[in-house]
Amino acid sequence: MAERNDNKTESAESSLLVSRVKEGIRKLSAYSVPHYHVEVKLDGNESPFHLPSDVASQVEKALSAVDVNRYPDPEALAVRDIISRTSHFPLDGILLGNGSDELIGMLIATFCGGSGSILIPVPTFSMFGITGTALGARVLESPLDGAFDIDFNPFLDIIEREDPDLIFLASPNNPTGNVYSEEKIGSVISRSRGIVVVDEAYSDFSGQTFLPDVKEHENLIILRTLSKVGFAGLRLGILYGREELAREINKVRYPYNINSLTQATAGVVLENHEFVNENIQLIVRERDRVYKALTGMEGVETYPSDANFILFKVGDADALFGGLIDRGVLIRNFNRPGRLENCMRVTIGTPDENDRFLSAVSEILAP
Amino acid sequence: MAERNDNKTESAESSLLVSRVKEGIRKLSAYSVPHYHVEVKLDGNESPFHLPSDVASQVEKALSAVDVNRYPDPEALAVRDIISRTSHFPLDGILLGNGSDELIGMLIATFCGGSGSILIPVPTFSMFGITGTALGARVLESPLDGAFDIDFNPFLDIIEREDPDLIFLASPNNPTGNVYSEEKIGSVISRSRGIVVVDEAYSDFSGQTFLPDVKEHENLIILRTLSKVGFAGLRLGILYGREELAREINKVRYPYNINSLTQATAGVVLENHEFVNENIQLIVRERDRVYKALTGMEGVETYPSDANFILFKVGDADALFGGLIDRGVLIRNFNRPGRLENCMRVTIGTPDENDRFLSAVSEILAP
Repeated sequence: MAERNDNKTESAESSLLVSRVKEGIRKLSAYSVPHYHVEVKLDGNESPFHLPSDVASQVEKALSAVDVNRYPDPEALAVRDIISRTSHFPLDGILLGNGSDELIGMLIATFCGGSGSILIPVPTFSMFGITGTALGARVLESPLDGAFDIDFNPFLDIIEREDPDLIFLASPNNPTGNVYSEEKIGSVISRSRGIVVVDEAYSDFSGQTFLPDVKEHENLIILRTLSKVGFAGLRLGILYGREELAREINKVRYPYNINSLTQATAGVVLENHEFVNENIQLIVRERDRVYKALTGMEGVETYPSDANFILFKVGDADALFGGLIDRGVLIRNFNRPGRLENCMRVTIGTPDENDRFLSAVSEILAP
Repeated sequence: MAERNDNKTESAESSLLVSRVKEGIRKLSAYSVPHYHVEVKLDGNESPFHLPSDVASQVEKALSAVDVNRYPDPEALAVRDIISRTSHFPLDGILLGNGSDELIGMLIATFCGGSGSILIPVPTFSMFGITGTALGARVLESPLDGAFDIDFNPFLDIIEREDPDLIFLASPNNPTGNVYSEEKIGSVISRSRGIVVVDEAYSDFSGQTFLPDVKEHENLIILRTLSKVGFAGLRLGILYGREELAREINKVRYPYNINSLTQATAGVVLENHEFVNENIQLIVRERDRVYKALTGMEGVETYPSDANFILFKVGDADALFGGLIDRGVLIRNFNRPGRLENCMRVTIGTPDENDRFLSAVSEILAP
């Protein structure tokens, strides 16, 4: 009895303490990734390719030279230097994050955390909205048009009316797969008085990039990442912007945010990027093949992709998802009421993995 | 001439954009770590010890098994599981951060980002105040007493008056080196209606820990880190708290915040921690030796230490700092007006490194 009473008291106190959690956060759900053990993993927009053996042995060598007892270089100078050299972008305009996730958080903290607002087209990458809410910014959403492109007039109306501090444009967009039209992105950049962030996580697969435009537009910031081209495990996001803005954003960066092992590995793979480019070309070819095959299947509606994944719609996404799991193939199920009802996203894998996915789908959907 | 005009326009526009940076951040300075190339590095509170060769080869093996093309385990389950097992703390109350820095940021975002307040005794670890400001919390400071302990009555007055959402108590404190009195910490925990975070980054060197008290006090959160005991390069901070609070804090965690290489390495070193404990014992013995030697020197005032470093005061800290650099020894110079005027902090190194530091100091200060 006594014990029971104790528990009761404890639970009452607990909810009191949880009530001190900021309201916006209490209402959030944690970003969660369901676990499945499957042979063919096509759910995470990762690269399916391992390191070539010569690069792997260089990485091993670099890692074994790391003094893990010492703090990492807080400026990650060696890595930023390679990026500056290969992108022809000024070193002081380049910041690194523990994945783009952290860079998105740093941008929100710098320009509008606690007050202020961000504007995003929807549907888009969920971390813009989650992090906006977590850091106390108002999140303004504007639905994409029928082709999943920016719906220009309503979008500009919000810019005029609300003057958002930050606009996040993921192009190619996730999970829709398409790039936004270059003209629309350009107009948004010109007509926004706040910062426009073009998240180019998937731009290696599209060829579209606004990086050269930073020279013209001081309110433009570009995000890139190593996650989609072979190095999701390293967590390395890259921000490119004007030096005077980078200097401010750098103030909210945790001083040792890029660990020593990631710095050492990134140094090697960025210097040896030929294999990365070859893998990207292969993924682009496979994407076009999978797109054609999927489009030809009855009961499947595909959306054009400029990324390393394809969004498609079926009659019963939950059933297809379950059937694929039974056949050892994991993709991402976005089925929820609204624009993404019965929509699914498949990451492009190796030719073999793609074949297994395609034959599983046609088997499941066969009448 | 045309070019010059362009530049002028650009610079006027730039300052306009920088004006969109939140005011609190514009006023911040970035945390900066000066670079010196020296033989004896005693400035960063790092462990001077490398991995034993048997552990190093296990780490190498674990690292070469990492698929860097895949995202890390978002739950870092293997690492959290070892920590739960060795600390006898519930798994769901354990969260990991990219260093304690990130955990401090997650706590502030959860409880008081954008509004609300944190309370810290000063001087203390600078990231509490920097991150509080960066995330838009009000930072309340209460000076430590003459023994660098919590100045109890004024501290409690602030708690009563301001009801801060978060109180950060680093014990042992950095840069002062001492633990706060257990009684005072206990009273602060009991009498605060907000969250009390005891940052035990250096507790391995003091033996004082409040980890068992989380069972009694639901508003208590403990931070630990691997940085001071041999693994600063990995960036792994650990948060222990009640499961219902951890669940909320976890919502603001970036889903893949602990990269795969750190997870793999931490798994090995946490399973093989005997060498870590031996190194800690050696550092504690050396700390007491260095403390005695420094205390015996004319012109040096030492402060008692429960950590892996010693704070001390001299007549002219800048001169001593320069003299030490000339002799290949780097320590941390805290000289600034106020409590830390002419104060310096030396990290305990290997016996050899400590000897080099001590003989350099006595050489420089010799009359």
